[in-house]
Amino acid sequence: MRILETILSAALAVVLLPGCSSSPAAVYLKDYMDESCSEDAMPAIRAALEDCARLKASKLVLPGDTVRVKPARAFEEYQYISNNDPSMKRIAFQMKGMKDFSIEGNGTTLLFSGHISPFNLESCENISIKDITIDFTRAFVSEGVVTATGKGFFELQFPDHYETTFREGNLVFRDSDRETYPYSSLLEFDSVRKEVAYHVHDYWIWTESSQAKEVGPGRYRFYRDDYGDATVGNVMALGASTRNNPAFTLLDCDGFSLTDVRLYNCCGMGVIAQSSKDIELLRMDVEPTPGSDRVISISADATHFVNCKGYIRMIDCVFKGQKDDATNVHGWYMAVEKVLSKDKLLLRWKNSGQYGVRFIKPGMTLELVDSQTMESYSRKEVKEVEYLNSEYAEVVFSESLPGEVKEGDVVAEDDGYPDVLISGCYIGNNRARGLLIGSRGKVVIEKNTFHSPGTAILFEGDGRYWYEQSGVRDVTIRDNVFDNCMYGSSTWGSAVIAVGSGIPDREHSRYHKNILVENNVFRGFDNRILNLYCVDGFTFRGNKIEFSDADYPAFGKPEDRFIFKNCDNIKVEE
Amino acid sequence: MRILETILSAALAVVLLPGCSSSPAAVYLKDYMDESCSEDAMPAIRAALEDCARLKASKLVLPGDTVRVKPARAFEEYQYISNNDPSMKRIAFQMKGMKDFSIEGNGTTLLFSGHISPFNLESCENISIKDITIDFTRAFVSEGVVTATGKGFFELQFPDHYETTFREGNLVFRDSDRETYPYSSLLEFDSVRKEVAYHVHDYWIWTESSQAKEVGPGRYRFYRDDYGDATVGNVMALGASTRNNPAFTLLDCDGFSLTDVRLYNCCGMGVIAQSSKDIELLRMDVEPTPGSDRVISISADATHFVNCKGYIRMIDCVFKGQKDDATNVHGWYMAVEKVLSKDKLLLRWKNSGQYGVRFIKPGMTLELVDSQTMESYSRKEVKEVEYLNSEYAEVVFSESLPGEVKEGDVVAEDDGYPDVLISGCYIGNNRARGLLIGSRGKVVIEKNTFHSPGTAILFEGDGRYWYEQSGVRDVTIRDNVFDNCMYGSSTWGSAVIAVGSGIPDREHSRYHKNILVENNVFRGFDNRILNLYCVDGFTFRGNKIEFSDADYPAFGKPEDRFIFKNCDNIKVEE
Repeated sequence: MRILETILSAALAVVLLPGCSSSPAAVYLKDYMDESCSEDAMPAIRAALEDCARLKASKLVLPGDTVRVKPARAFEEYQYISNNDPSMKRIAFQMKGMKDFSIEGNGTTLLFSGHISPFNLESCENISIKDITIDFTRAFVSEGVVTATGKGFFELQFPDHYETTFREGNLVFRDSDRETYPYSSLLEFDSVRKEVAYHVHDYWIWTESSQAKEVGPGRYRFYRDDYGDATVGNVMALGASTRNNPAFTLLDCDGFSLTDVRLYNCCGMGVIAQSSKDIELLRMDVEPTPGSDRVISISADATHFVNCKGYIRMIDCVFKGQKDDATNVHGWYMAVEKVLSKDKLLLRWKNSGQYGVRFIKPGMTLELVDSQTMESYSRKEVKEVEYLNSEYAEVVFSESLPGEVKEGDVVAEDDGYPDVLISGCYIGNNRARGLLIGSRGKVVIEKNTFHSPGTAILFEGDGRYWYEQSGVRDVTIRDNVFDNCMYGSSTWGSAVIAVGSGIPDREHSRYHKNILVENNVFRGFDNRILNLYCVDGFTFRGNKIEFSDADYPAFGKPEDRFIFKNCDNIKVEE
Repeated sequence: MRILETILSAALAVVLLPGCSSSPAAVYLKDYMDESCSEDAMPAIRAALEDCARLKASKLVLPGDTVRVKPARAFEEYQYISNNDPSMKRIAFQMKGMKDFSIEGNGTTLLFSGHISPFNLESCENISIKDITIDFTRAFVSEGVVTATGKGFFELQFPDHYETTFREGNLVFRDSDRETYPYSSLLEFDSVRKEVAYHVHDYWIWTESSQAKEVGPGRYRFYRDDYGDATVGNVMALGASTRNNPAFTLLDCDGFSLTDVRLYNCCGMGVIAQSSKDIELLRMDVEPTPGSDRVISISADATHFVNCKGYIRMIDCVFKGQKDDATNVHGWYMAVEKVLSKDKLLLRWKNSGQYGVRFIKPGMTLELVDSQTMESYSRKEVKEVEYLNSEYAEVVFSESLPGEVKEGDVVAEDDGYPDVLISGCYIGNNRARGLLIGSRGKVVIEKNTFHSPGTAILFEGDGRYWYEQSGVRDVTIRDNVFDNCMYGSSTWGSAVIAVGSGIPDREHSRYHKNILVENNVFRGFDNRILNLYCVDGFTFRGNKIEFSDADYPAFGKPEDRFIFKNCDNIKVEE
């Protein structure tokens, strides 16, 4: 490997002679790989990426076939990533400050083992990644088939290749490298339909206290008073207890595209982008490993966008089987912990999933928001900011704050929001909801098929629990098919299209504005189509509603179809 | 506070006019404190320390009385500290790159709450800290009195001020700020003697699976098949499951002294110094909070020195009640994971408590060691080092390595070792051992009183488990009193003075050299005075052995008194 590397470096160096402005055309990963990479290509990836950065290469070309990657010799960094768990992370493709660069996959399967983040991009510009498959040798959500149930217990049969051990009577999953795969939840899936079983809900179970017993090879009995009615033959998914390693992390990036990327597994979200701009996912497929028996793909949301700008486009994608929502687009609220002076606030992150995010910068405009109504009452410019630690920040404003500012209010950036286009996608068979839409930019959701176990399109946002900024201004939902949604847990939404914002005082609040729902097909067994509150401006027209209990037992009453509370300017044409 | 700060800053600025070389005499913490600091002085400490650094003050003067400090607004940093747990830490007195600086305590009690490291020093020179008391509002080792035992259970009564809650049937300790205090071990203490109960040993219990039940106010029943014979009235200590926040951390420091420091509590070691030089602890008292019923002081070793140089002095100190050894002085071994070429090794940390330590530097001499014998077979100079992550490093040497280098060998720095003086100290009533001595410098241990539950002076070191470099060369143990040692667990050592090194192949290995034991008094119930192996040069003379079963039941046989195996040049004069 070293010899090849030396030859290559020399070759590239020729292209970069002083006065020569042309970039090397490409760096080829295969030139860095020797037979020692067959079990772990990480040393080759490190060397190739370091050369790409050093030589300002325009692209890295992957070799096709399968490339195995392990965390042992990977890059490492402690990261706070919004809506994921902070931790010291191993990272495979670590990209910082790169610009005008692409990774050409040539159909390569990157087959990872263990806890590692496939791609991490920070302060990058104009990056594209094409034609790769990402999978892991050991899944992060453990799936077992229900073999028996009874009073106070159930039994699960896990696949032959699952390695297990017991600690203090608790069942621990691990792999051949002795990495462990901790779990914290339990959810039943219909093994024929490959989707959440009808109207089941989440249970919680922890590796540290599972108190299971082995009752046969790969078969374990779990003693639970609260869970004895699972269907024999169904699949029970033991959900990962951490979200440590997203497949693609974008921090402060400008210009990013994924094209023809297939993602079958990872320990966290598929794409998490924060404070980033202009993102396109074209034909990205998130789904359980094809050819396997699995019902779950990745262990958290397929995509998640926080405080982004410019455009977010998801076109002709598949978001299937992920262990949480297909997407969530929102901003951040920090809470006012203390008014330090007339122009200075002590702010605090109240949702630990946001710790460590440092988005406030001098010159930025913040809105001040009453967390009872979620209505904004003032906009002020930041003069200085000092982050005390991952939880607290002191912010000085350019002018005096209004007298009404008080502890418990929240602040968010109010300088621009992303335009969102979600078109031609399949969204379903996952846990929870479809799309959580919280951008104040122009949002178009069109030509998608939804088969969501909960709400298909949800308008969230609150300043008391998740602390996520929302409040849509311009949403068009058109030409979609909503196919038998709402078959999952009752806690995953109140209707196919719904508001779920945490607004304690709703009477005068109109947090969301201007939502158009037209020319869609709502097909299914559940009467609950719309459930909205605190909306000003909503139009429902040209939609087709096809009630059918052919596939699922009918649910809800006809009068539940359209529910509006504390709304203005509602137009419904059936 | 801000007004005072402004006045002070202006005053100090006057002293630092260009051309004026005199340092300001002092920064006074009281000038930064207002009434808002009565619950948490952290904002004042931050402001004062920032001024000390900015203005190059020669000292920070504390105000006397009690100063309360909480983690909320403390400094924060992810730290790898040897023999402690890596984590994102909150830090109170964060000192980096400071020089010729002292903190004058004036008897101040720094009363902390929650998980916070009191003092962290990195790359500092000539720092002294005097006359302070460190305590915490809530201890990290939870102590309960045994109220009942029986077949498969025991009951503990905890103090009234302990706040508890249950999670999934497991007992969780927390404080009024909702911080939790996780535990992982159980050890019985004699409540009259205030020491580990006679010949008990450690049990393991986890917050996550304690499965306890409340049976009265503050009284809990723990169901355990393996622990039903505790003595009613004794104290059961539930040990902290993490070592996150040492009281004093020294990283790459040169010149440090503590004088008249009283340390009653912290979540980790008392003093941990790594890659540091010239350290003196004068009249440092580690003990359970005086006036309390507590038997435990801090939750881990009182002191711990790794890869240090120059001198380490501990004079007239008390190391009492800590939940682990009084001190441990050793180096680090990294393991050879792979021989990459004739002059290049892939090294790996094999003990996770050493992860993240980056001690190897170009120009350093490393010894190469056979981990079967622990004997060094070569010394080579480092040319280049690249740390891949917290676990792996690639090291290039200035010349070819000997042909015998192989996977599983270990390497350590071999450039100089600290001279150690431990004099006039009281060492006892803790868990485990007294002094673990692994320096190859001149070591003098004199005029101390030991009342250690295990071995009083232990020579450790191994390349297969803890990966700690030892191999003493010059140790004098004189004029000490060993008072009834060895009353604790049989796993804490084989004799009052013992070798405990992990040496698989002992026949020809002489890992330790030149140990003199003279003019000491060995008083007590246990026949086992010496148990040594792999030592070349040992003299025992002028000592007084007073066997007595007045205080504890006699233990061991007379022939166990002096045990030597695989040793050379042994002289014993009884």
